[in-house]
Amino acid sequence: MPTARELATFLQADLAGDPEVDVRDVGAIDSAKAGDAVFALDAKYLALAEQGPAAVVVVPRALSSAHKTLLRVDDARLSFARLVEKFRPVERPLPGIHATAVVSREARVAKTASVGAFAVVEAGAEVGERAVVGPHCVLGARAAVGDDTVLAANVTIYRECRLGARCLVHAGVVVGSDGFGFTPDAKGNHVKVPQVGNVVVGDDVEIGANTTIDRATLGSTTIGDGTKLDNLVQVGHNCRIGKRVIVASQVGLSGSVTVCDGAILLGQSGYAGHLTIGERAIVMPQSGISGDVPPGTAMFGSPAVPRMERERIWLASRKLPELLKRVKALEKKLGGE
Amino acid sequence: MPTARELATFLQADLAGDPEVDVRDVGAIDSAKAGDAVFALDAKYLALAEQGPAAVVVVPRALSSAHKTLLRVDDARLSFARLVEKFRPVERPLPGIHATAVVSREARVAKTASVGAFAVVEAGAEVGERAVVGPHCVLGARAAVGDDTVLAANVTIYRECRLGARCLVHAGVVVGSDGFGFTPDAKGNHVKVPQVGNVVVGDDVEIGANTTIDRATLGSTTIGDGTKLDNLVQVGHNCRIGKRVIVASQVGLSGSVTVCDGAILLGQSGYAGHLTIGERAIVMPQSGISGDVPPGTAMFGSPAVPRMERERIWLASRKLPELLKRVKALEKKLGGE
Amino acid sequence: MPTARELATFLQADLAGDPEVDVRDVGAIDSAKAGDAVFALDAKYLALAEQGPAAVVVVPRALSSAHKTLLRVDDARLSFARLVEKFRPVERPLPGIHATAVVSREARVAKTASVGAFAVVEAGAEVGERAVVGPHCVLGARAAVGDDTVLAANVTIYRECRLGARCLVHAGVVVGSDGFGFTPDAKGNHVKVPQVGNVVVGDDVEIGANTTIDRATLGSTTIGDGTKLDNLVQVGHNCRIGKRVIVASQVGLSGSVTVCDGAILLGQSGYAGHLTIGERAIVMPQSGISGDVPPGTAMFGSPAVPRMERERIWLASRKLPELLKRVKALEKKLGGE
Repeated sequence: MPTARELATFLQADLAGDPEVDVRDVGAIDSAKAGDAVFALDAKYLALAEQGPAAVVVVPRALSSAHKTLLRVDDARLSFARLVEKFRPVERPLPGIHATAVVSREARVAKTASVGAFAVVEAGAEVGERAVVGPHCVLGARAAVGDDTVLAANVTIYRECRLGARCLVHAGVVVGSDGFGFTPDAKGNHVKVPQVGNVVVGDDVEIGANTTIDRATLGSTTIGDGTKLDNLVQVGHNCRIGKRVIVASQVGLSGSVTVCDGAILLGQSGYAGHLTIGERAIVMPQSGISGDVPPGTAMFGSPAVPRMERERIWLASRKLPELLKRVKALEKKLGGE
Repeated sequence: MPTARELATFLQADLAGDPEVDVRDVGAIDSAKAGDAVFALDAKYLALAEQGPAAVVVVPRALSSAHKTLLRVDDARLSFARLVEKFRPVERPLPGIHATAVVSREARVAKTASVGAFAVVEAGAEVGERAVVGPHCVLGARAAVGDDTVLAANVTIYRECRLGARCLVHAGVVVGSDGFGFTPDAKGNHVKVPQVGNVVVGDDVEIGANTTIDRATLGSTTIGDGTKLDNLVQVGHNCRIGKRVIVASQVGLSGSVTVCDGAILLGQSGYAGHLTIGERAIVMPQSGISGDVPPGTAMFGSPAVPRMERERIWLASRKLPELLKRVKALEKKLGGE
Repeated sequence: MPTARELATFLQADLAGDPEVDVRDVGAIDSAKAGDAVFALDAKYLALAEQGPAAVVVVPRALSSAHKTLLRVDDARLSFARLVEKFRPVERPLPGIHATAVVSREARVAKTASVGAFAVVEAGAEVGERAVVGPHCVLGARAAVGDDTVLAANVTIYRECRLGARCLVHAGVVVGSDGFGFTPDAKGNHVKVPQVGNVVVGDDVEIGANTTIDRATLGSTTIGDGTKLDNLVQVGHNCRIGKRVIVASQVGLSGSVTVCDGAILLGQSGYAGHLTIGERAIVMPQSGISGDVPPGTAMFGSPAVPRMERERIWLASRKLPELLKRVKALEKKLGGE
């Protein structure tokens, strides 16, 4: 069990209080147990932590306490994340191919990789060093997952789709299903446009449970380094998602949307095809985007407009029933209509 | 083949008409076949049933018919549900572990439980009495499913997540994927906040196909007894969903949302983080909730306001194009601007 | 490697330019390589193609070029789709049942069908000629897939559900999960309404990744011939979807919705129960439909109204903050209130 002093060294923290207190685990302020390390971002949360049994509190450098031992750091959230990793390391399965897995002789699986029960790795597929292909995952022909990438369970990577290094792909994810492309024939039938491109995912990407990413019609659907997708997201064919983009749950991107680096797409927002979302743009939840979004802009509403305009319209809308009465009163005064 | 009389006894129904008529099956009014039992909630539907070939009609006690044998009950829908169960009992697989399943020696599987083809049950996992782990389900390390709980197929329960008794979990469900938590480092990269909590699901919970429930960052994401989630629902990390809550399809809950007992969240509605939805509150479809909802309140719209206000705003909005003209006319009259 | 002349014959195209140029592959205008065939729907795209290295351009008959060999056709998109199929034929797995698959002796699997690794085919299920049941798919008891239908991977077809011929079902799809039906008992518990119907899917239907289609309470949920569903769509119990319907990603249909032939339901739109969407109606993205939609009508917004009305309301809404000021000015002029 490490002491507060040892954790202070580990985090390069400024220790205030008892350096010898033992820290047993990490906890949340509202459910901490004796011996836990918790974190507090401001004085209000620190006051809550002081009332609980936590042994130490990770706080921003400016805070102080007469009651608890503090670990004062530059970024309390980041430091606490490091503590959680220390106290609760993620279990990785042992390297090797499970006896039940079906791995093509023409696949290349690194010796240090782990391939789980009932996994299927087809011809020409590649699994990188220390990568984990979880139980029931399917890696199609010539697909690839990079070093240290983890596919949780029940993940389907279609043929020729490629994931980079250190990605984390949650259960039920589908990468490389066909784009939704049809063209009418003379009789009004929807003739399938063959979807023969692929998906290329960069490094350090996280993909949430049951999210779907369609392959490109031709070329590649791409997801840039460090981008994070939440659960149940839809990425259409030929989308180009940049680096460090955040895509919250249930967002839906039509085909050929470009999302530039650092953009934030909040929950349930939707995007028409062939748009560009500028760098560091923010799209508020449930917004509907039908045109390009300039860099750095916050958009809101369905249809979406800049957030400030949307809020002005909304505030005015709430006065609308009363406005109708006021206009009626004016009309009466003027003897009109 | 039971007679109407026997069914009346079974349902504690008041029989009106021919007690000896044989009932062969259950059916819907619009597609009933001869010999079917159907149900009608009011005189209008009973009239429809009278035109069809049904042998008996389950109705509220107040109704009567000159043409059909009736089973008059307190709650026609509930009684009919019991008839359906009687005529079309759900098949349960036989107890035992399928030859192809991979079950850890360190797992505890009840003798009366059924573990299907290619199921994976990892170390420390528990499967209760008469529980069913369907084909291709994965039960992670130290996960648990209670007595009589059914996991349909392709269900993934991550490590340490627990389901109570008599739950029904449909295909493709993911319980215990990581919450969507990142914190920026100095370079603007999204550093993962480790997600080391779990999910605890109560008794009598139904979870619809491809729904995802994220594990807590620390502590537990909880779903209360008797709550029902439809398909493609997203439940974020650390949500606390109460008892007998209804969550319709494609609802999205951000992290740390509290939903109190008996609330009803309708289709495609979305919830920002850290909110509380009061007891028996109703959220209308596609609503966007960004603040607490008081108990018993009906909310509507994106952004959501009390339903009556939203409807007043909407009615007024439809007059808005005309209102613009009326104001212009007034301005003209006044010689203004 | 075919020449332009050979491709012109194949497409019944009118060739303009060098008939002997070799065509190596198909490509997109913005990423074409030397030797590629690309397509251009109008003069603007043709100009782009002329600047690239493509060997031939498939274009509408009206276009001409001084720089590139053209294949002039009636429908450039359709002809190009045929070229893509020619150059990049989809690999089909070999016929036969994989050694690891679990196929009931009481199932009927055509000799020409392919059943993949770890597939489960239960008693009474049927697999048609040349059909493909991909790895990890589950075909429940008495379920059926027609001739030439492909289930990609991790697809779950519940008991008794039937798919027609030439369907394409993407990874993670669930067909036949229970409808979301409950009725309250005297204590306020949600009692399950048994879901004992099935799902019947016609011919030439495509179903996108992780889409869910619930079985009927009684009778059948139906999807008509030639209908295409995108990813993450929810189809409730007892829906009746007609022929050649387009359902874009993340659309949600409540129970008992009727969608008539040729309708187009765009992304994230939602539908209350028991509605009818008329033939060739179009529902714009994110719209919320709570009443019947007449044939051929375009609906927009949440709540949805005819598209033109919605756009008028929206344009007027943007003037609302200013309108408030104008009314205030009028009131001031009139010395009112």
